[in-house]
This record gives sequence, C-alpha cells and structure tokens, in this order.
Amino acid sequence: MPEDLSRLCIHSITTKPWSLATALDKYAAAGVGGISVWQDAALATGLPEARKLLAASPVEVVSYVRGGFFPHRSREAREKAVTANRKMLDEAAEIGAPLLVLVCGAEPGQSLTESRKQIQAGIERLIPHAMETGVRLAIEPLHPMYADTRSAINTLAQANELAEAIDHDAVGIAVDVYHLWWDDGLESQILRSGAQRNLYAFHICDWKVPTMDMLNDRGLMGEGCIDVPRIRSWVEAAGFTGYYEVEIFSHAHWAKDQDFFLQEILAAYREKS
Amino acid sequence: MPEDLSRLCIHSITTKPWSLATALDKYAAAGVGGISVWQDAALATGLPEARKLLAASPVEVVSYVRGGFFPHRSREAREKAVTANRKMLDEAAEIGAPLLVLVCGAEPGQSLTESRKQIQAGIERLIPHAMETGVRLAIEPLHPMYADTRSAINTLAQANELAEAIDHDAVGIAVDVYHLWWDDGLESQILRSGAQRNLYAFHICDWKVPTMDMLNDRGLMGEGCIDVPRIRSWVEAAGFTGYYEVEIFSHAHWAKDQDFFLQEILAAYREKS
Repeated sequence: MPEDLSRLCIHSITTKPWSLATALDKYAAAGVGGISVWQDAALATGLPEARKLLAASPVEVVSYVRGGFFPHRSREAREKAVTANRKMLDEAAEIGAPLLVLVCGAEPGQSLTESRKQIQAGIERLIPHAMETGVRLAIEPLHPMYADTRSAINTLAQANELAEAIDHDAVGIAVDVYHLWWDDGLESQILRSGAQRNLYAFHICDWKVPTMDMLNDRGLMGEGCIDVPRIRSWVEAAGFTGYYEVEIFSHAHWAKDQDFFLQEILAAYREKS
Repeated sequence: MPEDLSRLCIHSITTKPWSLATALDKYAAAGVGGISVWQDAALATGLPEARKLLAASPVEVVSYVRGGFFPHRSREAREKAVTANRKMLDEAAEIGAPLLVLVCGAEPGQSLTESRKQIQAGIERLIPHAMETGVRLAIEPLHPMYADTRSAINTLAQANELAEAIDHDAVGIAVDVYHLWWDDGLESQILRSGAQRNLYAFHICDWKVPTMDMLNDRGLMGEGCIDVPRIRSWVEAAGFTGYYEVEIFSHAHWAKDQDFFLQEILAAYREKS
C-alpha cells in the first residue's frame, strides 16, 4: 500500500475508547482519509453534534454501521426491523454517510433459506427510503461461524446472488477479508461483484492464530493468516476505487494506548495491506 | 430416529471422563451399537488392553480418531506427519477399527491452496499402508473457523473434489453436521459423496446459540440450531447405511454426571436426530 493515507478509512469501533470527536481529531492529524461511523459513537455524541463535527472535519464519512437483522419468526418483529433500518437510513443521512452497512441477521429457529428470503424482502422494503435519503445499502456477508444469529449470508456468492436478484443501484456489497478469506471461490466472486457494479465497500483486518474470542479478537493486518495484499489485488482488479476500511473489534487492541494503536494501524496499512 | 440403538455410535471423547473400559461397559449396557475410539483413550488404556476390551465387547469399533495434519512449511515436518499417520493406521488396525478419520490440517504461514496440495500428497502417500492394514481413511471437512490451523478442507465440495481426485476405495469422507450445516450446497454435495461411493461416516451434534468456545462448546442434538433430521435425511437419500456417530466436545457436558449425560444422548438420538 502507498505511503499516502487518503484512501485509508478507519471504523470508529476500531478505536472504541475514543469519542467521535477525538477519533476525528486524531485521524485528521494523522492524515487518514475516511471514517466509518458506528451507531454507538454517533448516538453517544448526539446526531446533530456528530453531523457538525463530521462536516467540519477533513475526514470523509464513508459509511454508517450497522443496520440489518431482518429475519424473525413473527411478522411484527420483521416490521420492527424494517422500521429500525429506516431510522438508521435517516441517521446515516443526517451525519452525511452515503452508505449503510447491513449485517443481515439470522433466526436460529428457522432455516437459513427462510432467513435469506426474509433478508431479501427486508432489503427490498428499504429501497424507497434509501432512494429518498440518498443512502445506499451494502450487504456484508459474514463468516459461517456467525450463521446462527448474525447472518444467513455467509459467502460472497450468496451476497452476489442476493444483490443481483434485488438488482437495484441502491443495493451493493461490503467485502470484509475477515469473513471471506477462507473461501476458495473468493477471487472469482470478487470479480463478479465488480463486474455487476456491486462492490461498494472493502474492509480489512486479520485472523489471529489462535483466535481466542469469536467476536472481539480480530487482528491488525499482518498479525494473522489472511493474505490481505492478495485479496486487495483482487478487489482492485474488480475495479474498486473506494476506501480501504480498517474494522477491528479487539479487547486486546482497545486495551492499548489508542495513540500508539493508531500508529500501529498506519504502519500495518502501509506495510501489510 | 427409531427406538433401536443399533446404529448409534458414540465417540469416546463425548464421554471423556470415562475410561475406554467404562465407556464400553456403559454403552453396551445401554444397547449402543458402536464406538469411535479417540487416540487419547486408546493410549491411556494401552493398545493391547484396548484391543482385548473391544474384541470382548458387543459394541462395534466404528473408527479411530484422528489422523491428518499434513501441511507444513518444511519437507521434514511433512514427512513426520506421514510417519505419524502410518503409526495411527497401525494403531487403528491393532484395535480393530476399519476407518481412520482425518483432520487434514492447515499451515497459517502458507496459502490454503498450498495446504490443500500437501494434504492430497500426504493422503496419497498413506494409501499403500492403508491397504496393508485394511484401514480406510475418511477426509473430514472442518468448519471455516478452523481454516487457520486445523483444516484447509472447509466444505464438503472441497472434500468431494479431493476424494474424487485421489479416486481410491481406501479414501472417503466423514460428514459432520457441526462443520457443514451452514452450507447452502450441502444437500447436493452429500448426494455427490454418496453417488461417488465416498460417504464413509456421519457425525452428529448441534451448534449452540450462543456458542461460547470455538472448540469445546458443542451441543447435543436439539440443543442448538442445526436441523439434524433434515441433514440425516440427505445422508440416507445418498445411500448411507452406517452409524450415526455422536461426537461432542463440551466442557459443560463433560462436567455432568456421565451416566446422566448418556441418558440425555440416548433421548436426543431418539427424539432430536
């Protein structure tokens, strides 16, 4: 990766101990180009204040994270999910985020096939409001270890099929190396996402060896076994020109001095991505 | 599942607190048809004694668990792995097990593609000794959350490709619902395994919601989100007539009174499988 950090984006949750205001100051001072804002950070700051901070910052808002969780046994719960996602589109629009990332959800009491149908129906219901708010939607396929409750979309092939079935410019895909690195069809599926103009976002981090926690033990690029530069080369071959988004949930990294951690992120971005 | 337990097999590790002798007594008294013997249990008992116990028991030896771990950076380490697997074939033959289950391995310092090549080479090197000992080999695809160090074979499609590439009666596949339940191609891949006469073993348990530990928090059938009866119906449609093997690693279940746990296993087998 080049020395230049203009295409580096950091997710607010990566430096969770920092408030949105602090993160923006620190990222800007380091020359980081973008930020993806998690709802917890935005709501803790207050949306009007978050909007003001982001508008005044040289750091660009890349996405708002995360909507989704469409599948439920009852129609009422599915309606609630659509309503909650409309609200998240409003919040994204309010802070100036052009994209809402979707963790699609899964209901362990029904088949993954049924959950996928409900995901498609939920996303299609959101399209009019996505158009009104000018915020697009990115389906993020999640690792199969999250198929019980977090997402019934567990491969890029499934995300491609879903995005192509919906076939609307408001709906694309977020590719995250953490979820997809193991897939032997990844290169061809990334090229397919690109060819179909569905590659909306690219998230990077690493899979630590060993991984001690299924959720909060992600590694910095170079700390684990994912060949990030190789996957990046596929994403670039697919025509992607957006941000490289560092999204790391890690008790170990959150416990560090966050100024020091930010320097580690910059080094890992330049040398290991 | 029928009341009859003649096709029920339990892995010795499922009731880990029991010695091999105790497990055999308890399984036999309950009418359980088969046992798959883990190496730790066999070596703790001593192979000659294990052989005697198993020969005298009405419980049939279904498989020996587990060989594999073929990929390594150095040729020397790969040679050692082949030698270790030959020894495990000898051990399996000594206790009368007709099948050695393979957890194929993965080397995080190289690509999964390279690890897969080394797995194929390692298995092919074992075939002569498998023929001599009369012990067949079962490739067990593992969940993608184990792709870092435990197995580069993470889908049944990959296991099918590998078994078909090797194309030898001594090499087949073990299907485990824990590793494969999330895969939207599972039904067709199980039918493919059957059609190619590669379906050598079928392991059952459940995926708990939530799962607290990546290795030792498996559930009993019915405790989680896997539709075991549905996957069993695919395995039967594929022509499988072997044992239903209960393989559970669980700190929670190991902490229980094992007589009580055995009764739970029998009930879950009859009612939730």
